[in-house]
Amino acid sequence: MDIEQLLVNVQGGTTSVQDALNTLKYMPYDELGYATIDYHRQLRNGVPEVIYCEGKTVAQVAGIVDNMILRGTQNILGTRADRKYFEPIKEKYEDATYFEQARIITIERQKEKKSVGTILVVSGGTSDINVCEEAAITAEFLGNNVTRLYDVGVAGVHRLLSKLDYVKEATVIIVVAGMEGALASVVGGLTDKPVIAVPTSVGYGASFGGVAALLSMLNSCASGVSVVNIDNGFGAGYIANSINKLKG
Amino acid sequence: MDIEQLLVNVQGGTTSVQDALNTLKYMPYDELGYATIDYHRQLRNGVPEVIYCEGKTVAQVAGIVDNMILRGTQNILGTRADRKYFEPIKEKYEDATYFEQARIITIERQKEKKSVGTILVVSGGTSDINVCEEAAITAEFLGNNVTRLYDVGVAGVHRLLSKLDYVKEATVIIVVAGMEGALASVVGGLTDKPVIAVPTSVGYGASFGGVAALLSMLNSCASGVSVVNIDNGFGAGYIANSINKLKG
Amino acid sequence: MDIEQLLVNVQGGTTSVQDALNTLKYMPYDELGYATIDYHRQLRNGVPEVIYCEGKTVAQVAGIVDNMILRGTQNILGTRADRKYFEPIKEKYEDATYFEQARIITIERQKEKKSVGTILVVSGGTSDINVCEEAAITAEFLGNNVTRLYDVGVAGVHRLLSKLDYVKEATVIIVVAGMEGALASVVGGLTDKPVIAVPTSVGYGASFGGVAALLSMLNSCASGVSVVNIDNGFGAGYIANSINKLKG
Amino acid sequence: MDIEQLLVNVQGGTTSVQDALNTLKYMPYDELGYATIDYHRQLRNGVPEVIYCEGKTVAQVAGIVDNMILRGTQNILGTRADRKYFEPIKEKYEDATYFEQARIITIERQKEKKSVGTILVVSGGTSDINVCEEAAITAEFLGNNVTRLYDVGVAGVHRLLSKLDYVKEATVIIVVAGMEGALASVVGGLTDKPVIAVPTSVGYGASFGGVAALLSMLNSCASGVSVVNIDNGFGAGYIANSINKLKG
Amino acid sequence: MDIEQLLVNVQGGTTSVQDALNTLKYMPYDELGYATIDYHRQLRNGVPEVIYCEGKTVAQVAGIVDNMILRGTQNILGTRADRKYFEPIKEKYEDATYFEQARIITIERQKEKKSVGTILVVSGGTSDINVCEEAAITAEFLGNNVTRLYDVGVAGVHRLLSKLDYVKEATVIIVVAGMEGALASVVGGLTDKPVIAVPTSVGYGASFGGVAALLSMLNSCASGVSVVNIDNGFGAGYIANSINKLKG
Amino acid sequence: MDIEQLLVNVQGGTTSVQDALNTLKYMPYDELGYATIDYHRQLRNGVPEVIYCEGKTVAQVAGIVDNMILRGTQNILGTRADRKYFEPIKEKYEDATYFEQARIITIERQKEKKSVGTILVVSGGTSDINVCEEAAITAEFLGNNVTRLYDVGVAGVHRLLSKLDYVKEATVIIVVAGMEGALASVVGGLTDKPVIAVPTSVGYGASFGGVAALLSMLNSCASGVSVVNIDNGFGAGYIANSINKLKG
Amino acid sequence: MDIEQLLVNVQGGTTSVQDALNTLKYMPYDELGYATIDYHRQLRNGVPEVIYCEGKTVAQVAGIVDNMILRGTQNILGTRADRKYFEPIKEKYEDATYFEQARIITIERQKEKKSVGTILVVSGGTSDINVCEEAAITAEFLGNNVTRLYDVGVAGVHRLLSKLDYVKEATVIIVVAGMEGALASVVGGLTDKPVIAVPTSVGYGASFGGVAALLSMLNSCASGVSVVNIDNGFGAGYIANSINKLKG
Amino acid sequence: MDIEQLLVNVQGGTTSVQDALNTLKYMPYDELGYATIDYHRQLRNGVPEVIYCEGKTVAQVAGIVDNMILRGTQNILGTRADRKYFEPIKEKYEDATYFEQARIITIERQKEKKSVGTILVVSGGTSDINVCEEAAITAEFLGNNVTRLYDVGVAGVHRLLSKLDYVKEATVIIVVAGMEGALASVVGGLTDKPVIAVPTSVGYGASFGGVAALLSMLNSCASGVSVVNIDNGFGAGYIANSINKLKG
Repeated sequence: MDIEQLLVNVQGGTTSVQDALNTLKYMPYDELGYATIDYHRQLRNGVPEVIYCEGKTVAQVAGIVDNMILRGTQNILGTRADRKYFEPIKEKYEDATYFEQARIITIERQKEKKSVGTILVVSGGTSDINVCEEAAITAEFLGNNVTRLYDVGVAGVHRLLSKLDYVKEATVIIVVAGMEGALASVVGGLTDKPVIAVPTSVGYGASFGGVAALLSMLNSCASGVSVVNIDNGFGAGYIANSINKLKG
Repeated sequence: MDIEQLLVNVQGGTTSVQDALNTLKYMPYDELGYATIDYHRQLRNGVPEVIYCEGKTVAQVAGIVDNMILRGTQNILGTRADRKYFEPIKEKYEDATYFEQARIITIERQKEKKSVGTILVVSGGTSDINVCEEAAITAEFLGNNVTRLYDVGVAGVHRLLSKLDYVKEATVIIVVAGMEGALASVVGGLTDKPVIAVPTSVGYGASFGGVAALLSMLNSCASGVSVVNIDNGFGAGYIANSINKLKG
Repeated sequence: MDIEQLLVNVQGGTTSVQDALNTLKYMPYDELGYATIDYHRQLRNGVPEVIYCEGKTVAQVAGIVDNMILRGTQNILGTRADRKYFEPIKEKYEDATYFEQARIITIERQKEKKSVGTILVVSGGTSDINVCEEAAITAEFLGNNVTRLYDVGVAGVHRLLSKLDYVKEATVIIVVAGMEGALASVVGGLTDKPVIAVPTSVGYGASFGGVAALLSMLNSCASGVSVVNIDNGFGAGYIANSINKLKG
Repeated sequence: MDIEQLLVNVQGGTTSVQDALNTLKYMPYDELGYATIDYHRQLRNGVPEVIYCEGKTVAQVAGIVDNMILRGTQNILGTRADRKYFEPIKEKYEDATYFEQARIITIERQKEKKSVGTILVVSGGTSDINVCEEAAITAEFLGNNVTRLYDVGVAGVHRLLSKLDYVKEATVIIVVAGMEGALASVVGGLTDKPVIAVPTSVGYGASFGGVAALLSMLNSCASGVSVVNIDNGFGAGYIANSINKLKG
Repeated sequence: MDIEQLLVNVQGGTTSVQDALNTLKYMPYDELGYATIDYHRQLRNGVPEVIYCEGKTVAQVAGIVDNMILRGTQNILGTRADRKYFEPIKEKYEDATYFEQARIITIERQKEKKSVGTILVVSGGTSDINVCEEAAITAEFLGNNVTRLYDVGVAGVHRLLSKLDYVKEATVIIVVAGMEGALASVVGGLTDKPVIAVPTSVGYGASFGGVAALLSMLNSCASGVSVVNIDNGFGAGYIANSINKLKG
Repeated sequence: MDIEQLLVNVQGGTTSVQDALNTLKYMPYDELGYATIDYHRQLRNGVPEVIYCEGKTVAQVAGIVDNMILRGTQNILGTRADRKYFEPIKEKYEDATYFEQARIITIERQKEKKSVGTILVVSGGTSDINVCEEAAITAEFLGNNVTRLYDVGVAGVHRLLSKLDYVKEATVIIVVAGMEGALASVVGGLTDKPVIAVPTSVGYGASFGGVAALLSMLNSCASGVSVVNIDNGFGAGYIANSINKLKG
Repeated sequence: MDIEQLLVNVQGGTTSVQDALNTLKYMPYDELGYATIDYHRQLRNGVPEVIYCEGKTVAQVAGIVDNMILRGTQNILGTRADRKYFEPIKEKYEDATYFEQARIITIERQKEKKSVGTILVVSGGTSDINVCEEAAITAEFLGNNVTRLYDVGVAGVHRLLSKLDYVKEATVIIVVAGMEGALASVVGGLTDKPVIAVPTSVGYGASFGGVAALLSMLNSCASGVSVVNIDNGFGAGYIANSINKLKG
Repeated sequence: MDIEQLLVNVQGGTTSVQDALNTLKYMPYDELGYATIDYHRQLRNGVPEVIYCEGKTVAQVAGIVDNMILRGTQNILGTRADRKYFEPIKEKYEDATYFEQARIITIERQKEKKSVGTILVVSGGTSDINVCEEAAITAEFLGNNVTRLYDVGVAGVHRLLSKLDYVKEATVIIVVAGMEGALASVVGGLTDKPVIAVPTSVGYGASFGGVAALLSMLNSCASGVSVVNIDNGFGAGYIANSINKLKG
């Protein structure tokens, strides 16, 4: 353990009291010594740093990317990125990629090792695809195999039932649905794998920007369903990755 | 038409102006002449009068029943009736019946003519049965054939799918579900018959006493679903009757 | 058990493989072999396919229409369609029609057989007309006679009362109202026919985009009222059709 | 102390009674020396003091009444008073009266001069009667003629229409209704008199303890409707009095 | 009474049964014989017809005004009218006036008789002035004396207290306030006159577009306060007029 | 197509009726022949059947247990079980166990194989322990190693930080917290393992029965957090099991 | 600084590495060495430990008190304590005191040094007194001078204005109010001292258990007002203490 | 008028300047003679006048500034000021300054005396900086030392912990956070200083424009946290100043 070594060094005189003090001061725990969280999280979590672009200026996002490249970051993921954020990055970094529907920018210089399992992304309707793709691209970026099964909403439940193999073969399932969000319960009832439900803001009137789907998913009569924030495709992809990685 | 006859009588002198005036005064439209709505609605709608018991005293409910019997009402339906309401009525009217789960009291002296079609009552879970029975008993009292299909919630969607014949044979379907209320969408996607959805207050936490199921049903991705108030089994049975009667 | 018998019959040669296949095809869940739900629903429900345009691109909607025409679809209904969706369709299909107020596109090559009954669409105010027309055009497209009775809100209840004949002659009534939505209760109290209530987002302040009308309608003191989502004229027209068709 | 000095001045003849009166009448804030606001409001508003009993102990309410009687208060009104509050008061003050439905205690020793106009209290259903009576008894206690018109809800609008004379003869109208509260709009559309709407907590499910009726009344399409808090019969009676008094 | 005369005519043979029938058919009550509510309301309520412009096209509003002028309407009030509605009207009717802050259009050819009393409009802040002016101009148009007392919010309560004479001299008081809406309670505590409270959508964050002020006003600890919808200046002016007219 | 081939095989005699039946039986949707879902889910999910007791009568729960034992179920889990449910079960089945805090009844006759990983249950305060135990006992019953770390809320964040080893060693972490639910974010920021957050109804005032914690968790600034319904300890334990099982 | 000393000791050999490690292990930061937060917070904050009783058993609370006394805690504060919690404590510790209205238990053996400033607790109505007293007793226990000014709600604003000296002399002001909570804004407008507003759940109907007052206070037009949770008298007293202590 | 008389008395020597000053200082309400409250508050509170620009026209804001300069105001603060408000002011007053992020305009001609203590502004993320700066610039303008500690959200709690000295050295702490707002609780648990929490509208989906953070902060498990409205940086700076000034 690092602190033990530090103390041994102080005892042995190879580290001064003042130096030890400084070291202890800047290490919240033994995550010590990292000037910024960005680079620390990358190591700690095995997850490359993520830039949430929405609400930042184009220049700010470009600046963060530059700084990360300078520091040697291999893989960069920018989410909620309208195309305008992509242009200055593309100009400078030819290997940058833009995913239109997912609104994601990636630079990927050192491929993540692929996980053993598979993440299935299921959606209720075609309007949910943007959120689906945010989840799927995120999960792929983090080194997962992803299967997509879109537009299989419960208004025609046979569409899902005819693709049950997809459900059975997945390690973890992301269900993306707006309106009444019932798909999460139906999928949850068909599998013993963890289901991550993502309510979307698709709908009108009493859907209240995704609240109807959110409540529906939180109250799912199927037991294996947990829920993330409305339209939070990135979060779902991130969690699915952390689960899928457990399999190896 | 009554008003025409009245005018003919005035013209012919068999009714005085003053008498005609009094008659007209108490008839809002040509539903004329009924002192209270109770007896008027019975004729107008072909639906016997209904007593909503909750919030009334036992004596009040008993008094209303007495008054109705006195006036010659053949069929009486009391809803939201805890057993305490039933006892004084049973003592006086031997043919009164109490439906425990539905919390309904009936006196039925002149059987309604049975409708041609069938009303199907489907429920998500066993806890929804009270609301289901309120709907079912109401519909039967109003002269309908009712089929019950309980505990076929979407957490195990094959339960419903194995009973599709019930769905196909119904004229109108009442779907009763709490929690996330997804059953309404699944049933709505399997039929072209009108679906009346009843959210129930079954659930906990973010079900908010039935609000989650209500919103879910209002936002159903299946087109043929309309919704009544939370736990309003009576309303669903009443509407299903008005639809089923159209068939003959 | 039916499937066992079917298999025995196939084994015994009394049922051909093709017949068994057809039987299985129309069983609840093995509608599997259908590439898309669109064409199946059309057959199953007697309701031509519907395109919800909002949220799709102009090209996507045009593509779907092309595909449907190619597959021989006779009647096409596009809802929530701003005029921009109509132009490329009109250019290609001369018989396409645009309903401005209803925001509906139709192509109708094989007239639906008219139903026996009549659907009445009643509105509270002139601002509710768009939603009314969405309901009315939908119902007409599906083969129903529709009567319109607009701007008869409860602030001047005699307007409605002077048109009671319309109410009496309808098979099913759609009530469209914003603000406090009281019209649904008043109409519901005047008829024994099923009433479909559509809350609209017309109003301001504490109308909360239609929530006040929605709650009002869900709590209607008239028993025969069921409710659809805010501004959901299409849903109301669709349900009214499914009810009206019961009459023949 | 200013008031003491004022009285000394009056006693000594240095201030005339008329001047002292004017001073007292127009002193908004230096009523300071008064132990409680009660006695000032009584003079200022012409409205006897009111005790809101709910949340106070029986002893506290009894003590306040004793204190008021001691100080020479002629008329006392206790609202939200369960019967338990009445018993000790009745024992001591024989002329105290209890209104069961209104949950009101009164002592009335100096009859208020009756107003010229009439306050009409209209209710939607029999369950709203408690709130109605709170309004009616309050208004009568404050010296108004009150007419009651109960159970004329919009589910049978002819009941109200057949009693239009009541509406026409009133100076101000209090409309009490739960569930969807539509009665306020219908009455508001039938009169040019001020309408005070009182939503009640009568209802279930999505009535949310009176919120549905409250929103309905706030969004009334009839212009002359203002609203008080849920179940606030006292407030409605109080405001109706302040309006009716304007007539003389 | 008209109906009596009608019956006398039938009795006397000067009106045929069929004619009488037709007459009765089109008169809901004795408001008989008016083809549209517009012109009827004008007579019944002593209030000239009002056009709610928002949500109507410029052409529609212009058309309604033309029609009213044609029918001989003397006084016209258009509310929620952006300036664009005014231009075509001004071109045609030189005596039309536009009130910028109130967003009101008026044509006034026959001055209303002034009421005896005075309506006071009080506001919390300068941002509430638009709603204040809507109330004030409405009340003036309907023939009332109006006093304005703006920007006297409770954050500096002495501003209001120094103008107590305004409060004392009013017949009815309109209090317009956003944010926490506390002004209604303070004014309500200072007067025995009816207070109409108008919450405004002024504020940010947890003011929720006026909900905070609305709830505050509904829960006012002062008894004489009733409330209208958020930003409903017109409604407040209309009600204040109906109250003020009682005074003569 | 598979079904076609199956039928051809039956016809040709290469597949017996019984084998075909079995095949169909285990196909996704034709699990039809099963009388109740209970026994099927047990096989499909590797998760023993669960009885949600709340809302059932003592007799009903006892009956279900009897039926399950009769059918040979080895392991039974009853949740939301007040002690009253336990007594008749204990009398009949000596090996039944009651967990007071978790409100759980178990019968466990065939120990589940222990998973490799560990589930950590972390709580904010002592009042959250009931929900924690529901999660922990559920997870243990399903064959997981569970570590408990209670009362380490963020008001004293060093309590959690001094136990970081627990966090690091877990495969999946359940965070249970009421009030503001901030613990989920803090834990989520300290780990790359999946975090299941359970909001509890612990709190008062603006905690709204757990809504504050629920919203807090859904909006967590830490990416790896997904959420279940308020107080849903069972759901969290169930999901954690499905994740932990992935590890082996 | 303690850590420095520890390191010096390690360097000098008077503390072994293992001992130093143990010490560091139990000190989250340099708040080192405290086994539980209870005793640490007492030192760090100068605030004696607080027991929130509600939701704990009588035995649990008694046990915690015993433990604290054993450890030499001089001053103990128990909040949200119904009388039942007090009895076993009183039996054992004669110097324990119970504050009925505040629902607070104290043991105070070492008087806190009185602060220089004064905390003023102002309330709107008599029903808010329990919350007031919780704030006042808490503040007094923590060593502050407290002045009480109760029942000066804005419905009679002169009551407050006549006591302006109280406001002027306070260092910090706690305003406790239910219903519309307007008192916070009025007080906030009269002072430049920090105002802590406590909404109470006093009210009915649309007060929604204190939400109306809470929103009102959050939207206060007076700038110096910050807010705590509904009914959180303890929190207000605690914060007022932390502010008042700044003065000396 | 009193003030006039007072001045006459001073002129005539019957009242000393000191006495007149005292009178004026303590006259809560008869500051009447002042044209606007602005100038009084400045004296009373030691806080220069503040202009809330949002919702005012550019001309109005410029006019107010002109008027204040004319009257000799030394220091002016304009909040919620988009750059457009700044331009005409800058043209006329060269010493005007614009703070882009804070959206604040200042003119500062007479430096406030610096307070002894320090206000710390802590933020969760970079998107909260605008609100932070509004708080910080406000506090600096009012004469406080301000320390900024940004982007130390709880998703990486070690960032905050490594800067504990900042927390310890502050007199009062402003915590600005959106999303789940957990930072307020963590900071509140680390200090005995008053914490002012500012929820921001940063977030999406179920953050509901800052409601999630608001509720989180109101329910903080740390006792010393009080809360202001969503995005109300100015309010937090203002309150922090009023607290910090107590220290001297």
